[in-house]
Amino acid sequence: MNGGTLHWLAFHLTFLSCPAAGRRALKHLRAVQDVVLARPSDLEGLRLPSEAFQEIVTRRALAEAAVELEKIDRKAYTLLTFEDPGYPKSLREIFDPPLVLYCAGRAEVLEEPAVAIVGSRRPTPYGRALAGKLAGDLASRGCVIVSGLAVGIDACAHWGALKEGRTIAVLGSGLDVDYPRVNSRLAEKIAERGAVLSEFPLGTPPLQKNFPIRNRIISGLAMGLVVVEAAERSGSLISAGFALDQGREVLAVPGNVTSEQSRGANGLIKAGAKLVETWEDVAEELPTPWREKLLARREEKVDNSRDSLTEDENRLMKELPADGAVHVDELAERTGWPVSGLLALLLGLELRGLAVQHPGKLFQRSI
Amino acid sequence: MNGGTLHWLAFHLTFLSCPAAGRRALKHLRAVQDVVLARPSDLEGLRLPSEAFQEIVTRRALAEAAVELEKIDRKAYTLLTFEDPGYPKSLREIFDPPLVLYCAGRAEVLEEPAVAIVGSRRPTPYGRALAGKLAGDLASRGCVIVSGLAVGIDACAHWGALKEGRTIAVLGSGLDVDYPRVNSRLAEKIAERGAVLSEFPLGTPPLQKNFPIRNRIISGLAMGLVVVEAAERSGSLISAGFALDQGREVLAVPGNVTSEQSRGANGLIKAGAKLVETWEDVAEELPTPWREKLLARREEKVDNSRDSLTEDENRLMKELPADGAVHVDELAERTGWPVSGLLALLLGLELRGLAVQHPGKLFQRSI
Repeated sequence: MNGGTLHWLAFHLTFLSCPAAGRRALKHLRAVQDVVLARPSDLEGLRLPSEAFQEIVTRRALAEAAVELEKIDRKAYTLLTFEDPGYPKSLREIFDPPLVLYCAGRAEVLEEPAVAIVGSRRPTPYGRALAGKLAGDLASRGCVIVSGLAVGIDACAHWGALKEGRTIAVLGSGLDVDYPRVNSRLAEKIAERGAVLSEFPLGTPPLQKNFPIRNRIISGLAMGLVVVEAAERSGSLISAGFALDQGREVLAVPGNVTSEQSRGANGLIKAGAKLVETWEDVAEELPTPWREKLLARREEKVDNSRDSLTEDENRLMKELPADGAVHVDELAERTGWPVSGLLALLLGLELRGLAVQHPGKLFQRSI
Repeated sequence: MNGGTLHWLAFHLTFLSCPAAGRRALKHLRAVQDVVLARPSDLEGLRLPSEAFQEIVTRRALAEAAVELEKIDRKAYTLLTFEDPGYPKSLREIFDPPLVLYCAGRAEVLEEPAVAIVGSRRPTPYGRALAGKLAGDLASRGCVIVSGLAVGIDACAHWGALKEGRTIAVLGSGLDVDYPRVNSRLAEKIAERGAVLSEFPLGTPPLQKNFPIRNRIISGLAMGLVVVEAAERSGSLISAGFALDQGREVLAVPGNVTSEQSRGANGLIKAGAKLVETWEDVAEELPTPWREKLLARREEKVDNSRDSLTEDENRLMKELPADGAVHVDELAERTGWPVSGLLALLLGLELRGLAVQHPGKLFQRSI
């Protein structure tokens, strides 16, 4: 890493909590290194918060940045500054781009076309299945899926993308902070084939206030943002707001109006978001040439066929007739499984085109 | 009934199957009675189908109309001609208004503000409940609900409206033809408090080809058309097309994209139809002053409370805790009822604000 990186990191650490002051300093002194190497007289009239002023004039910012860089090296993370050629172009365009990005995994995925999929932390089986399916279908056609590593829809989108392609997770904590714990293994997998990102210094805890800040990166990295299940007032809607501000397409998957979890997405559609039924609906809204590239791969079916079935799914497939339909209660009796579990399994089969649902909770094997 | 009515009916019976010829004749001879009383020489150059020509010059049309009028009288139906002051204004504006309307019940409801609710003949419990709820909420605020008396969504909309106000059914057969049989009682109830309409002569069977023709009247009578569940290629979408042509608002209730029954409605929304969650969403799209009038009655809650519960619903309410939630499987065990039936009952309670559903099929009594 070159000296430029050290200066950018020092600048970032100094102004992370007061970005407006950072912008003023940069406007006045022109170069990042001139700010972090400034003498007290250079900073006159800039109205810097006293802490930032002290950080700079005592050179504490540089010392902290050097320590941080060492840690980054030890962890084998990459640090991308705003000036690096590998810094994502799409992020450069937004109003307040992060000045540095900590990256675990493959920084090169940041240069590929991406779509964000976000949603509720408490989704229904429907939302889970849809998020995974959309992510897989888009990823298999070369689209990187960006999300927030949260439990629920985010995790489903990441897992769905991992099966078929690549995905990026953007954190609201330091890259070395294991949060949420339940997604540790998912984060590892993402770093293997994609990237985990954060603008927060190492060790930053997952504070509530970090998440809206993080959300602007999720939408900033993507050409479009798809909301899959979101409650009426929720973080996903904040993300949608950022996306609109950033000139990104906002899309949403509708759901029954009786479902609390669909209220946010339905509301977005009412307000003008594009309604999404399949990955093609997402592709249709992307800018040229990505729209054409993705749609050209329409015929390439995701291979979700029988050999990828779990033991339970296989058992269930055997109970489904091809020449008629069977009621879910009947399936419950035959398998001894609870109806709610069965419905989730059946939905999974349905989404892979292996089963069909008829009115009245009747199910049939696809022909 | 005056002579004018006889002439209009004779004209209608003559040209029902060849409306373009009727328009040519009317343009040439100016008045309906001049057409039905024309001599052969008057009709020269009009290229009338030979059957229509014969009907007129032999005066058979007038004779048939006289017989038909007698039958109408005996049945105590009303016949509204295009010229009658009671002929609905909204219908007068459409491209090819029916020249006469047979009406059973109260013709005066035709002058009130109306909204059409249509949809699948094979709806899910979700669609049924939504259609009934929307119809009831709108009807209770003075909006007449128009639909097609079909099984499924149509019937649910009519029943929902009857509970709270008035409704109009438009038939694809003669007014005296009992079709569909299963809705005979519904048709009677509608005629008691609203109106049953048809432009088809008495005795006309419910031919397939009549229904699209009928659909233009449903949307023509209404300020807006709401589609609640419709398959991908369905009559409801034809109605939506008519409504657009007629300059009516088209609205649709979204549903899970995994539901076959929601494909048509979701598709309409994708194409620009307004998404409907509640009756207010419908009201918002109506023209002034109806929009304001309906919304002013926002606070008037439909009284759907406990005293209107069925025995089963009462039983179920007792099993729902107010301070926690219970799984549907648990409810199935306690009541001994099948899960699918329970879910339909619970949805009904939910829509009346008496129960709340939480993720994972957990249910709670509303507080």
